[in-house]
Amino acid sequence: MRPIALLTDFGTRDWYVGVLHAVLEREAPGCARIDISHAVAAGDVTHAVFFLGCAWESLPADAVVLVVVDPGVGTGRRAVAARCGGRWIVGPDNGVAGARGAPDELWSIEPEKLDLGLPSNTFHGRDLFAPAAARLARGDAAATLGQQLDPASAERPPCGEEAVRVIHVDRFGNCITGILAAVAPSGARLAWSNGVSERRVPSYGHAEPGRLVTLEGSSGHLEIACVNGSAAATTGLQRGDAVSLVPENEETP
Amino acid sequence: MRPIALLTDFGTRDWYVGVLHAVLEREAPGCARIDISHAVAAGDVTHAVFFLGCAWESLPADAVVLVVVDPGVGTGRRAVAARCGGRWIVGPDNGVAGARGAPDELWSIEPEKLDLGLPSNTFHGRDLFAPAAARLARGDAAATLGQQLDPASAERPPCGEEAVRVIHVDRFGNCITGILAAVAPSGARLAWSNGVSERRVPSYGHAEPGRLVTLEGSSGHLEIACVNGSAAATTGLQRGDAVSLVPENEETP
Amino acid sequence: MRPIALLTDFGTRDWYVGVLHAVLEREAPGCARIDISHAVAAGDVTHAVFFLGCAWESLPADAVVLVVVDPGVGTGRRAVAARCGGRWIVGPDNGVAGARGAPDELWSIEPEKLDLGLPSNTFHGRDLFAPAAARLARGDAAATLGQQLDPASAERPPCGEEAVRVIHVDRFGNCITGILAAVAPSGARLAWSNGVSERRVPSYGHAEPGRLVTLEGSSGHLEIACVNGSAAATTGLQRGDAVSLVPENEETP
Repeated sequence: MRPIALLTDFGTRDWYVGVLHAVLEREAPGCARIDISHAVAAGDVTHAVFFLGCAWESLPADAVVLVVVDPGVGTGRRAVAARCGGRWIVGPDNGVAGARGAPDELWSIEPEKLDLGLPSNTFHGRDLFAPAAARLARGDAAATLGQQLDPASAERPPCGEEAVRVIHVDRFGNCITGILAAVAPSGARLAWSNGVSERRVPSYGHAEPGRLVTLEGSSGHLEIACVNGSAAATTGLQRGDAVSLVPENEETP
Repeated sequence: MRPIALLTDFGTRDWYVGVLHAVLEREAPGCARIDISHAVAAGDVTHAVFFLGCAWESLPADAVVLVVVDPGVGTGRRAVAARCGGRWIVGPDNGVAGARGAPDELWSIEPEKLDLGLPSNTFHGRDLFAPAAARLARGDAAATLGQQLDPASAERPPCGEEAVRVIHVDRFGNCITGILAAVAPSGARLAWSNGVSERRVPSYGHAEPGRLVTLEGSSGHLEIACVNGSAAATTGLQRGDAVSLVPENEETP
Repeated sequence: MRPIALLTDFGTRDWYVGVLHAVLEREAPGCARIDISHAVAAGDVTHAVFFLGCAWESLPADAVVLVVVDPGVGTGRRAVAARCGGRWIVGPDNGVAGARGAPDELWSIEPEKLDLGLPSNTFHGRDLFAPAAARLARGDAAATLGQQLDPASAERPPCGEEAVRVIHVDRFGNCITGILAAVAPSGARLAWSNGVSERRVPSYGHAEPGRLVTLEGSSGHLEIACVNGSAAATTGLQRGDAVSLVPENEETP
């Protein structure tokens, strides 16, 4: 049995995530279930792609990843299962399955093939995607879900300016940007509309409490952090705010 | 081993839910555990009944459902296990177990039968209900928990005016009412003290962003939604506010 | 396979907890996973010790407890696995593993022994502690993680004045103090800077709605509760505020 990882924008105040787990256990009894996160911004595919990228390398090599961020539920968007190496991504075809380039295989998910009755108009996570993920977890062939599609037809994620913005503010108030440390000048620091971080450090414990620093977070992205504090609270930065890089030896403005 | 589904009003800021899971794993090692939700309004049995109804059909057919919403903990209210078809509901006898009519069987849960020492006065979820649910999950007979009771004696949920009110505001700001779509006039729209939704749609993607619409949610209840936005933020509606229906062809006031 | 219990300060808005679960399932497929809580105050070891104490007795006797509250990540603090009776605690050596006195065994966790590449500077939960916990869950010997250390060298938790303070405000607004009921005078009530609870009761249901009472919570600590309400909202008390005891027969000021 493959493990199933869940990523949604459902939050934690409703029964929606619980119902996904219930359907997975009902359709694939005993399967391992992993909640990546349910805090993706509502309907935000770009945010979902970022979260999935942060977790991807940590997932079991044979995981089925159920991603339900679905502002187009009930309209004509396709429901798909995409094989990416040894893993499957199951969800609406709105950019997540195609975010890592064309998948190795792409299949449609057809409600009539699932034999569970007509899906509701508003909760395809429960009625389509979780049952499809459970089948793949059980070892059923993708051909039991629907038709094979051209992998190159998978939707790509919306293009944005994430690279030069804060793309996530985490629980500790760290302001994570779209800038990958691997492609930034060595030692470069982050700046924003009315401020700049003091220096580049290897980790949170390497500066005095209260200092605003730039570091490479565990996702590989550069972030602004405040030692023993919240960079978001200190700077006022929010998700979507623009940032830029200051070279290592440049004077702080 | 039966899977165990958990529904509580414990929230996510404490160790209370974690301790339920710990006891379940300790007493029924390897059992599948499903969190339906822990966001039931504190002490609100009506809210718990609504959440359970929303998840009921999705649960495995042999689930043990542990429901701990227990404002009367430490007083004389009964602790019960109720069989409803192939499933069991375990919790305080305050209306949840009796919400679907008289159960097929009803048993008391007696602390001395659980052989775990005296329960605390404030956390029967840990000391009584989780151990009892674990026993049923393991396949032990209900007679190992306590005495058989008259199923007709199960408490019924408190009567309310939920039918004409907002009974839940979800993560997306959808205002879910107590009105079941199946019993409402076809095409009817929801109205509230100072507004009315523009039209009835089949799903969120069927109107322009920002429009307030009425639709049948996945729970079968009518709800007020705002496309790509929050109906709760737009209208100011909160849980408990009154709503009414406007027939399909009636002029909007 | 041992079950693994998780306790962190990661909160629920990021992918951090999800990645711990992913690594545990990847490295110890099929292991039972229990989330004790992820709501420990950011970087607060004292708070983590309190949470662990509240859950300890409920955990399976052979649990591996993964505790990641790690303000010193990326600095020189040790990474350890500590055996306490039949259970293991895995995490940074910052006071949690030594909170119950010297452990029975103490081992270092050495990145090169885990054979997973160099750890990041900021997420040792993912790169060191979860892989180490997974090994212990699988039944690997502690000697596969690192070197044996002197158990007496385990860090002790920071000393504080928790005993006479509110150490946690729970979801229901109960103000839990550091005072253990077992060592307080029988019948004593809690007082704070500008108020005192009315009386001592055995449980929440034993006073009229709205009354502020003192009771022994399920953790064994004395707490201020408001029947059918929030003591925190009523009194304005917050975590860290000072409290004192009023003997049973003393006049309320």
